[in-house]
Amino acid sequence: MTKKILVLPGDGIGPEIIAEARKVLDKVNAQFDLGLEFEQGLMGGCSIDACGVPLSDETLARAAAADAILLGAVGGPKWDKLDRAIRPEKGLLKMRSSLQLFANLRPAIMYPQLADASSLKPEIVSGLDILIVRELTGGIYFGEPRGIRTLENGEREGFNTYKYSESEIERIGRNAFEMAMKRNKRLCSVDKANVLEATVLWREVMDRLAPEYPEVSLSHMYVDNAAMQLVKAPKQFDVMVTGNMFGDILSDAAAMLTGSIGMLPSASLDKNRRGMYEPCHGSAPDIAGLGVANPLATILSVSMMLRYSLNKPAAADAIELAVSKVLDQGLRTGDIMSAGMKQVGTVEMGDAVVAAL
Amino acid sequence: MTKKILVLPGDGIGPEIIAEARKVLDKVNAQFDLGLEFEQGLMGGCSIDACGVPLSDETLARAAAADAILLGAVGGPKWDKLDRAIRPEKGLLKMRSSLQLFANLRPAIMYPQLADASSLKPEIVSGLDILIVRELTGGIYFGEPRGIRTLENGEREGFNTYKYSESEIERIGRNAFEMAMKRNKRLCSVDKANVLEATVLWREVMDRLAPEYPEVSLSHMYVDNAAMQLVKAPKQFDVMVTGNMFGDILSDAAAMLTGSIGMLPSASLDKNRRGMYEPCHGSAPDIAGLGVANPLATILSVSMMLRYSLNKPAAADAIELAVSKVLDQGLRTGDIMSAGMKQVGTVEMGDAVVAAL
Ligand SMILES: CC(C)[C@H](C(=O)O)[C@@H](O)C(=O)O
Ligand SMILES: CC(C)[C@H](C(=O)O)[C@@H](O)C(=O)O
Repeated sequence: MTKKILVLPGDGIGPEIIAEARKVLDKVNAQFDLGLEFEQGLMGGCSIDACGVPLSDETLARAAAADAILLGAVGGPKWDKLDRAIRPEKGLLKMRSSLQLFANLRPAIMYPQLADASSLKPEIVSGLDILIVRELTGGIYFGEPRGIRTLENGEREGFNTYKYSESEIERIGRNAFEMAMKRNKRLCSVDKANVLEATVLWREVMDRLAPEYPEVSLSHMYVDNAAMQLVKAPKQFDVMVTGNMFGDILSDAAAMLTGSIGMLPSASLDKNRRGMYEPCHGSAPDIAGLGVANPLATILSVSMMLRYSLNKPAAADAIELAVSKVLDQGLRTGDIMSAGMKQVGTVEMGDAVVAAL
Repeated sequence: MTKKILVLPGDGIGPEIIAEARKVLDKVNAQFDLGLEFEQGLMGGCSIDACGVPLSDETLARAAAADAILLGAVGGPKWDKLDRAIRPEKGLLKMRSSLQLFANLRPAIMYPQLADASSLKPEIVSGLDILIVRELTGGIYFGEPRGIRTLENGEREGFNTYKYSESEIERIGRNAFEMAMKRNKRLCSVDKANVLEATVLWREVMDRLAPEYPEVSLSHMYVDNAAMQLVKAPKQFDVMVTGNMFGDILSDAAAMLTGSIGMLPSASLDKNRRGMYEPCHGSAPDIAGLGVANPLATILSVSMMLRYSLNKPAAADAIELAVSKVLDQGLRTGDIMSAGMKQVGTVEMGDAVVAAL
């Protein structure tokens, strides 16, 4: 039985890092006899250039038909001046929403080989392994009404709507409890229930789900405190679950605790675990085309894809092991370089992972 | 000409830290002949216990008539089970909103004597001095409509409204530009203009104000990136300005970078610079009554009060110098204790500051 993967290289360093991820995929495809087939498509700025919109209906239809999507990164200064409605980001948001990829998994893992890279003291972050489960198709990102209107007194007002229904909270909540079951069984739900009604309901639903997962210990934390605790003592967390906006902020802060955002993959899943996989970092237009970008976050996204959407844990494990090996060999791209290591480019790093497989 | 100060000790450690701040105020009042007069009032849990609401109309009226308000801290587990409408936090929100204390100034300063306290590497945070200017009476904290409603399909939905008008953005923007003028003339405005229309207008208004402050260099940053940059390289920031919700999150993260949140004061000002002053930390019910709380954040809040609302910079300077002296003497409360220093309690710390004045 073949599985179809839609590959969307995107903009900036996207094509470079995707090329390396593809090499790795080709290797495991053969090695583990996975039966994967690949198609390529456009999303983001490259799609705007080619057909005027960041995500065409045709690409969206191919994405909907695929078993998984592998994305590089989208956006860049070239498209920043465009009307907001057709910016590269809109393609990403449309993809998430149309395919109902509501569960965004963002691991923040400290690789022991990269302990130096963090801006935090080693004892605070060594061994760090947090999974942030972010709701991705609701909340203030998609709430209506929204816009900019003129008030009676003649001045303008910008407005957005933050909302979550019980069923939206329930499905992301279950996802997070299930993730916690597979890990250390601690789940921290982040809200601002002392101020926002939308998150009062969030907290209530999380509490309601808890008895179904008696082994998981559920706690609640206000988002301001969560931001503080991530800086102060991040190892207190196992799985964190939160809404779209808070998740955007906290997952980036958590990622940066490791100092090596070039290493961090992400998954965005629908209710059947079909999903889109992409590195946590952006399209880094400043280094695009220079052959220096770190392909490991994208390669590790491939591993997540094999694990979550394609149910090929052995192949996923093999990739993670291979990445760990190249780090042990002392190979480093510029973003994670440190004294005594060997600096390599994007292609060399990809080749090294393939060789280690 | 006398000036009236309303003192609200609040809950938890509030009364203990306020007692020390009062000693310091009494001392500078005499020393600098400030003509300050004091009244005391109730806000938070203590007010709920005494009169059923977290902020009575009578206390609010006295606050409106005062030249400045000094607050300890509010809240605690005792009142957590109460109906949301009469929780201690509601008193704080009502005070901010009724008195239109729209400009919340939250410094994140790394005291050289406390460099060890941070969870970040010394080279990342030494000399850190950021001022976060947070809008405090608008945005999603106060936006209507809000609530929990039942949808047609029978399930419930929690909802809030995020909105900012041009005039609201303008007044906090001017405030931030003025702060930047008095500091290093760099202002970073934080928004999520790639997703939220409310912040598209925010960015537009900030850009429109910029030419009025040609010496200030204005930059814009998305909130997720700002959270990341605070962890990675916080010294890149001078003044940051943002809305109520993002400001809540980022100011707590920034405060925690210093590792000594027990040292950080805050001010909440109206358009005439009348305001409320309080420590950044909370009411710490776990250590209430033990005499171990750090009174320095509250004492430094007194200094901010003298500087911003009472226009007494010499007295403000004297307090800051006195705090620095006691740190030089090696005195530390438990929260900032480190090897080789002398651990003291709340009262001893307050006495030491008074003696150093
Ligand atoms: C590009 C942007 C719309 C997006 C988001 O805010 O979700 C990004 O920051 C992310 O986290 O994937
Ligand atoms: C207590 C709470 C309502 C408050 C806020 O969110 O503004 C607090 O976190 C703060 O930052 O002063």
